Amino acid sequence: MAKNDARRALLADAGIAVLAREGSRGLTHRAIDAEAGVPVGTTSNYFRSREALVAGIFERIGARLAPTPEDLEARSAAPPSRELFADYLRDIVRRLLGEREVTLALFEMRLEAARHPDIAASLSEWQRAGFAADVAFNEAAGLPGGRREVALFHYAVEGLVFDQLTSPIDPSIPTDEVVDALVAGLLPGR
Amino acid sequence: MAKNDARRALLADAGIAVLAREGSRGLTHRAIDAEAGVPVGTTSNYFRSREALVAGIFERIGARLAPTPEDLEARSAAPPSRELFADYLRDIVRRLLGEREVTLALFEMRLEAARHPDIAASLSEWQRAGFAADVAFNEAAGLPGGRREVALFHYAVEGLVFDQLTSPIDPSIPTDEVVDALVAGLLPGR
Repeated sequence: MAKNDARRALLADAGIAVLAREGSRGLTHRAIDAEAGVPVGTTSNYFRSREALVAGIFERIGARLAPTPEDLEARSAAPPSRELFADYLRDIVRRLLGEREVTLALFEMRLEAARHPDIAASLSEWQRAGFAADVAFNEAAGLPGGRREVALFHYAVEGLVFDQLTSPIDPSIPTDEVVDALVAGLLPGR
Repeated sequence: MAKNDARRALLADAGIAVLAREGSRGLTHRAIDAEAGVPVGTTSNYFRSREALVAGIFERIGARLAPTPEDLEARSAAPPSRELFADYLRDIVRRLLGEREVTLALFEMRLEAARHPDIAASLSEWQRAGFAADVAFNEAAGLPGGRREVALFHYAVEGLVFDQLTSPIDPSIPTDEVVDALVAGLLPGR
């Protein structure tokens, strides 16, 4: 990673930490400078506007929530099946729960989108690209389920993770079992 | 409603508006005074602490998201069926989306719970009572689905509503169709 990119990632990570801890209202260039322990003005040099900052944070959230090449490699050898789909989904849930701070930051930005049309536009573009990639990936891998099903899983997994990371209604149900029940019920082709 | 109760509801509604518009960090007794247009100190007189304020807001959120007696009456005459379950669920989604401000305020409080254990404790108690009531209602009405299924629907509906109220991944899918697909796949007894 070039030095400039490493610095941008460091500042975006600090922004994610601020978002998770203080919510979107706490997200300022100065708060990120303080969080990252860099001189005042540094974040403004790398991200000139709030829009640029928000875009940089989305990019970093995407990178931190993406599967590792090893994860993808390990599963790419497996024949497409309902079980493989469930395996991918369990992995997504594990990453979202494991990267607690990143996922909470994303939820904060989504609520911010409900208040600010410009953030909604930027976030929607980013999300729709991700959603289209998910649908394309599923198809290319020969896995069951099209656009409609991928949307259903998206809603259910997001609700599950939101619940688990905030104030769970029933912590006694293991998330892997929830994922298995979702796949058993919502994936076509039984 | 006694005058005192009406005043508490008015202040809690102002708190809900502040939460939806500014997030949990904006929620102060003074911000509620300003929002409600009452003299400074009024909210503190009715809700002595932040805990009391938060509890009062949860109570009000519950009241505003509850089905009307007319809604319950209309459906109580119908024989229990998968279609009736779907009808209840579509009604819940309609209420959550229709009371946009209340639902966003609830999401804000849930994210606040991820930061503050005392709020998490208070919110979890409130949520679990609601969840237990949902499970009991389903059973008493002779509807299909037990604790596990009610949890699955809770996650999926919360994720759907969160998505719809913030930055939707696919606004082209009508929410009623999502609910129908969830019921078709996740409710036992086909």
